[in-house]
Amino acid sequence: MKVLIINGPNLNLLGRREPGVYGSASMQECLERLYSAYPGVEIEYFQSNHEGALIDRLHEVGFDSDYKGVVLNAGAYTHTSLALADAIAAIETPVVEVHISNVHAREEIRHRSMISGVCRGVIAGFGLDSYRLGVEAVIGLR
Amino acid sequence: MKVLIINGPNLNLLGRREPGVYGSASMQECLERLYSAYPGVEIEYFQSNHEGALIDRLHEVGFDSDYKGVVLNAGAYTHTSLALADAIAAIETPVVEVHISNVHAREEIRHRSMISGVCRGVIAGFGLDSYRLGVEAVIGLR
Amino acid sequence: MKVLIINGPNLNLLGRREPGVYGSASMQECLERLYSAYPGVEIEYFQSNHEGALIDRLHEVGFDSDYKGVVLNAGAYTHTSLALADAIAAIETPVVEVHISNVHAREEIRHRSMISGVCRGVIAGFGLDSYRLGVEAVIGLR
Amino acid sequence: MKVLIINGPNLNLLGRREPGVYGSASMQECLERLYSAYPGVEIEYFQSNHEGALIDRLHEVGFDSDYKGVVLNAGAYTHTSLALADAIAAIETPVVEVHISNVHAREEIRHRSMISGVCRGVIAGFGLDSYRLGVEAVIGLR
Amino acid sequence: MKVLIINGPNLNLLGRREPGVYGSASMQECLERLYSAYPGVEIEYFQSNHEGALIDRLHEVGFDSDYKGVVLNAGAYTHTSLALADAIAAIETPVVEVHISNVHAREEIRHRSMISGVCRGVIAGFGLDSYRLGVEAVIGLR
Amino acid sequence: MKVLIINGPNLNLLGRREPGVYGSASMQECLERLYSAYPGVEIEYFQSNHEGALIDRLHEVGFDSDYKGVVLNAGAYTHTSLALADAIAAIETPVVEVHISNVHAREEIRHRSMISGVCRGVIAGFGLDSYRLGVEAVIGLR
Amino acid sequence: MKVLIINGPNLNLLGRREPGVYGSASMQECLERLYSAYPGVEIEYFQSNHEGALIDRLHEVGFDSDYKGVVLNAGAYTHTSLALADAIAAIETPVVEVHISNVHAREEIRHRSMISGVCRGVIAGFGLDSYRLGVEAVIGLR
Amino acid sequence: MKVLIINGPNLNLLGRREPGVYGSASMQECLERLYSAYPGVEIEYFQSNHEGALIDRLHEVGFDSDYKGVVLNAGAYTHTSLALADAIAAIETPVVEVHISNVHAREEIRHRSMISGVCRGVIAGFGLDSYRLGVEAVIGLR
Amino acid sequence: MKVLIINGPNLNLLGRREPGVYGSASMQECLERLYSAYPGVEIEYFQSNHEGALIDRLHEVGFDSDYKGVVLNAGAYTHTSLALADAIAAIETPVVEVHISNVHAREEIRHRSMISGVCRGVIAGFGLDSYRLGVEAVIGLR
Amino acid sequence: MKVLIINGPNLNLLGRREPGVYGSASMQECLERLYSAYPGVEIEYFQSNHEGALIDRLHEVGFDSDYKGVVLNAGAYTHTSLALADAIAAIETPVVEVHISNVHAREEIRHRSMISGVCRGVIAGFGLDSYRLGVEAVIGLR
Amino acid sequence: MKVLIINGPNLNLLGRREPGVYGSASMQECLERLYSAYPGVEIEYFQSNHEGALIDRLHEVGFDSDYKGVVLNAGAYTHTSLALADAIAAIETPVVEVHISNVHAREEIRHRSMISGVCRGVIAGFGLDSYRLGVEAVIGLR
Amino acid sequence: MKVLIINGPNLNLLGRREPGVYGSASMQECLERLYSAYPGVEIEYFQSNHEGALIDRLHEVGFDSDYKGVVLNAGAYTHTSLALADAIAAIETPVVEVHISNVHAREEIRHRSMISGVCRGVIAGFGLDSYRLGVEAVIGLR
Repeated sequence: MKVLIINGPNLNLLGRREPGVYGSASMQECLERLYSAYPGVEIEYFQSNHEGALIDRLHEVGFDSDYKGVVLNAGAYTHTSLALADAIAAIETPVVEVHISNVHAREEIRHRSMISGVCRGVIAGFGLDSYRLGVEAVIGLR
Repeated sequence: MKVLIINGPNLNLLGRREPGVYGSASMQECLERLYSAYPGVEIEYFQSNHEGALIDRLHEVGFDSDYKGVVLNAGAYTHTSLALADAIAAIETPVVEVHISNVHAREEIRHRSMISGVCRGVIAGFGLDSYRLGVEAVIGLR
Repeated sequence: MKVLIINGPNLNLLGRREPGVYGSASMQECLERLYSAYPGVEIEYFQSNHEGALIDRLHEVGFDSDYKGVVLNAGAYTHTSLALADAIAAIETPVVEVHISNVHAREEIRHRSMISGVCRGVIAGFGLDSYRLGVEAVIGLR
Repeated sequence: MKVLIINGPNLNLLGRREPGVYGSASMQECLERLYSAYPGVEIEYFQSNHEGALIDRLHEVGFDSDYKGVVLNAGAYTHTSLALADAIAAIETPVVEVHISNVHAREEIRHRSMISGVCRGVIAGFGLDSYRLGVEAVIGLR
Repeated sequence: MKVLIINGPNLNLLGRREPGVYGSASMQECLERLYSAYPGVEIEYFQSNHEGALIDRLHEVGFDSDYKGVVLNAGAYTHTSLALADAIAAIETPVVEVHISNVHAREEIRHRSMISGVCRGVIAGFGLDSYRLGVEAVIGLR
Repeated sequence: MKVLIINGPNLNLLGRREPGVYGSASMQECLERLYSAYPGVEIEYFQSNHEGALIDRLHEVGFDSDYKGVVLNAGAYTHTSLALADAIAAIETPVVEVHISNVHAREEIRHRSMISGVCRGVIAGFGLDSYRLGVEAVIGLR
Repeated sequence: MKVLIINGPNLNLLGRREPGVYGSASMQECLERLYSAYPGVEIEYFQSNHEGALIDRLHEVGFDSDYKGVVLNAGAYTHTSLALADAIAAIETPVVEVHISNVHAREEIRHRSMISGVCRGVIAGFGLDSYRLGVEAVIGLR
Repeated sequence: MKVLIINGPNLNLLGRREPGVYGSASMQECLERLYSAYPGVEIEYFQSNHEGALIDRLHEVGFDSDYKGVVLNAGAYTHTSLALADAIAAIETPVVEVHISNVHAREEIRHRSMISGVCRGVIAGFGLDSYRLGVEAVIGLR
Repeated sequence: MKVLIINGPNLNLLGRREPGVYGSASMQECLERLYSAYPGVEIEYFQSNHEGALIDRLHEVGFDSDYKGVVLNAGAYTHTSLALADAIAAIETPVVEVHISNVHAREEIRHRSMISGVCRGVIAGFGLDSYRLGVEAVIGLR
Repeated sequence: MKVLIINGPNLNLLGRREPGVYGSASMQECLERLYSAYPGVEIEYFQSNHEGALIDRLHEVGFDSDYKGVVLNAGAYTHTSLALADAIAAIETPVVEVHISNVHAREEIRHRSMISGVCRGVIAGFGLDSYRLGVEAVIGLR
Repeated sequence: MKVLIINGPNLNLLGRREPGVYGSASMQECLERLYSAYPGVEIEYFQSNHEGALIDRLHEVGFDSDYKGVVLNAGAYTHTSLALADAIAAIETPVVEVHISNVHAREEIRHRSMISGVCRGVIAGFGLDSYRLGVEAVIGLR
Repeated sequence: MKVLIINGPNLNLLGRREPGVYGSASMQECLERLYSAYPGVEIEYFQSNHEGALIDRLHEVGFDSDYKGVVLNAGAYTHTSLALADAIAAIETPVVEVHISNVHAREEIRHRSMISGVCRGVIAGFGLDSYRLGVEAVIGLR
């Protein structure tokens, strides 16, 4: 069983960027915790600042039944990208939307998600623990 | 360690109400799975259709440090009750918002939550598994 | 055959409250006219100012096939209560929405009903005669 | 005592048009049931797809005290015609608005009525039985 | 020199309709005052409740240079008819918009005119004297 | 095979009206080009400035299977007539919406079409060539 | 009989300012035409760019029954000044709103007038002739 | 002379809840200061988190002329409860709306009050001193 | 201790202007009552219809610690003047906003205050007694 | 003569993606039909999920007069990309917007196109036949 | 060459007012730096809290070709004064809009400028350096 | 000291694209003028039509203290890209937003900037001189 974690724009800066909002741990530390917590799951990781590259990657895994699901933190594209929403709706692999911060406690524009409606579910606000809950949720999907 | 699960209006009908949206399992089954999955956690349950009763209950546990957190599915009050939001902001015990269905894939009015901004985080769309992820999230809170 | 008439907030003041808008007859007189007009129908009556109590009552009769339908004047909750709408959608007994005044000729906020979409139909503006037309409509439901 | 039933645009297609929404009975059958149910009332019928023709007809009966009232299903003009609303407000004969379908359970644009505020009352959602309830309401007007 | 006065829907009821808003004088009296006040101008009059008929009439005079201008009280179509606005924009004869009542002191929907932008000018709120000022304005057009 | 072309309000003025927007060719020239381009198709033409007359005409051909489809340029009614939309939805003959100008490059109000959602498709912006593409599209419908 | 003409901000530039919109004649020429056209009327003139000064002036004449009315071109304050509207509502002398240009054919913000509702009537779009029509309207007021 | 002070949802937490917003004094201290400041006035106190209970209490005192007025801090229901507004409009005892914090300096949703329009007046932003000013205002009512 | 009362536009007409809304007592009477009620407080009074003059006056007293506070009835500028709000925010002397009428029971535009958020508190709806409550509130400020 | 067909995001999945909306034929089949239908036209094809790549490609052909036009299905970027609109406006080669589905019969967000206003025309709703009509339209452009 | 710097409401308080937002340097210091930096330019300065006075001043210099341009910080009038915008549009001297703070990082209402569209350009967010950049921009105008 | 100038989508067409809006000089000429005007500053240049590439580039320089600042003309992404705004907020190097045209004098959508709030300041409307002012502003930053 494979699970793909996808991070969108600016999430390559985790640990450097606005620690008050995103914490000071890096994504690398987060992934390592996941690898040891879920030894039976093959966890892949992909990050890009390019909307098109995120779509391309979703297409690649989206019809491959080896993938139990995708854990997607689309960053700011969450709020502006209908193309990403279309990609999620078009593929067969289920996608779980996650956010590090509680987007609902931030600016108005971050309250509206263009992708939530086509994802299986949403998890937001638990810091890097949101990724663990996302993997947990993918494993529990039927 | 105690965790309180609170269900809001109409959630007493789980298993009877719109199975296409909410599934056919009852809350009782869900709780029993949680009791066995988390033997070291004292899981309490409260349901009411009364907005005021939900607020009263939050006040009762909200300053009691035995409670690690509250898992709250406020049902329709999620979208209309500022009083509930004020109660969550007023207490000290952290609250995790959960939803059975993916509220973002439903009618417009369910896309706006009045309580998300004052909850620690949000979990939505995983059926009754949302409660398990909610308990999981509470345990992981720092 | 039973029909339940439910009155929401402030409708206990009928006959005392704003006679220019609601008329000067009391609900008691209205019910008595209905009892004699429909001797073959068991007409029950319930009033509460509590949103939760209205929901509780709908749940009680909502799966009892002795009830042909509910005639509901939800008063101000008509315009603000999504929880009430969810209760109506969740139960099996059909609900007919009635209003004494013509809500569309009053303030903007009373033009939007949160419950109309899940009721079978709507009757508004005929004074206390709206209740008679509501009972008539329930009897005619298929 | 005369009662005029007016049907607006596309209602000449009743029985042929979208049976899922409007049912398969024709207006002719509906009228015949009304003739036998109300032998003491002279029920007239008028249908037009022309907004102006509906206004002309309202003017013709609107100052004739032989008419107890008008039962008006203005179809789509309900939602777009201020001219029709002005006609209703200008005449003396009271008008009762009826709809076959529950307009509030349909598209957003059908939730707003331009004529409800100047009609005596509104009845919607009871299929062709809405016309019977409309006649009943007219008879009950004071 | 000819001037055409066009009245739209429900204005055939002038003198009968809501005297508090529109006054109790009839259009006939108004026209007679105009005939004597402007003996050198051939004043024509047309009224219809049909949007299409108003457009047809505008087309008929709109390319006939005998007409110095049109004084148009489009009634409720003022606020809803883009087709009428297109007709006014399409013809060559200038059109002056008039209203008996002060539309800006009435309901919100009457504050927006769909035709003002394509008329030469607007005169509103002077009772039947608005027609005289409209003719006066047409005569003064360059 | 028959195809009916319907033109709405003010389109009788083609060639005379705002040549900058609509070109200087008349509808007659356009139809003649279509007759010779599609000798095997019986192309009918209807124009009216009356919303009701357009609806009447749609009803007449809407259940007649000799008609492969309707090419409809509803002019300004495109943006204001829900009644026309209902007529299109009610009939069986498919309707293709066409516009001479690119409505999206004009005023805001022309960006919203009330009928597009119930037409089979939309063609806009190609001058009189839009009619040819509309006929072409009707022929290609399955 | 006195009539006061008040001009608001930037109207002191008439003849210099945007001749395409406001024409090239000066206010002085306009006033002289009015003096000779209405020899029996004492026409006063006041201009200021200060909102407060316009209000002060309205107060001065507003309870003096020698003034038959005020012809007010409030310029941009038409669209932003509630204080001016309050002044007009507070005084007894009737006020007629005039505009040189057709405000409805200009930018969106000029379509909304804050003062129209409290003026007796509105005249717009006739160039400097709007002032003559305004005086004419004041004389005709009852 | 009696004055009833009513506190709505979450105001039972005064002194514990968000001291930065609501101060650290308790309601008990506030009441005691009022008792000694107004020895001739019988000051009653009622608090509930239940919207329905607040309405019930208003009904109880609302037709009892011993009560000079009600000082109501409806908390979050201020912004969401039309039912409470209806209760205030329905009773005869005048109601003065008070708030501890300056609601206008807080989130957008707290800028709109559903009850202000039916209260006699509003006092907001003076901390617990708002209650004293509220009692003062009630005493001054005519 | 000094307290400055500032009245904005049209409030110089108190006693003459719309007595139904503002009462028939003059500001002079109100001030005299205040002088005798608060002999130990030096109450100053300033009125202007000029937005700029109100700002100038606030600047003059705003850094003078002899002034305990300002009682400001900004009239219509309450709803339109961001410059006034900036002045209040810029100075050090606290400002209490007062209104004679209950602005929330009047037109929509009077429900929004641009200055409330930067004032210490708001008092509205108690007639001229609002000024007394305003002085009372200033005295109670800490 | 060359015509370039550009497909935007997710359109590489045609035939695999939501067959109910987009049909089951692949773009390859569509192109082959076009090659044989228009032997005299050199039809090129480009697809990318990258907004920037679509802009780059438009720039490449946009000043090359060998291209008669571009047939562009921008997919979801239609509704969100102002940058794409700017590219279309910046180049000289005309662009025809096409859509497979009837975007107006889908979700609200797909009713607004950011690019229609700068394209020559729009064709939507004819399945893959939209591309043929698009090529047809390009050929007919003057 | 002359350049006029105009400061609007509350900017006379620079150095005293909200130093966190506006810095602690005074306008006098800023002007002195400008005088020495641009010895060949005659820099004038004008400040007023009166909207009308700002308009008057613009008129005075607006047709005097000695002025190369105006550097205008309209303060809060930026966001509310259409009259000021009209003045800028009416004069011939070009106007450059400047702001000390980054208005886009402040409250919503400060994101909308009523004058930007009629100014030559906008400079915001550089503290008092915005004035230097404004003068620089005026000098560079063609 | 280094300054990076970044140009977003379609700005590679400067000099070719809409000369009426953007002028006919090329970016190359602009850069050469800057090189000679600021010999002591190392001015770099980067352009891309790819949102992701712009973000990547900002990340590369954003933590490198050799860069005094970035002058960013984000073109259309200014109005649609929250991801770009997040990148600007995430990095340490300050960013100055510039525009060639006065965006406020163009279409509505260009009045809203998603990035202004996180930039240090904004300069718009001075043609290619905006870049010079931008470099000037960066040099002046503290």
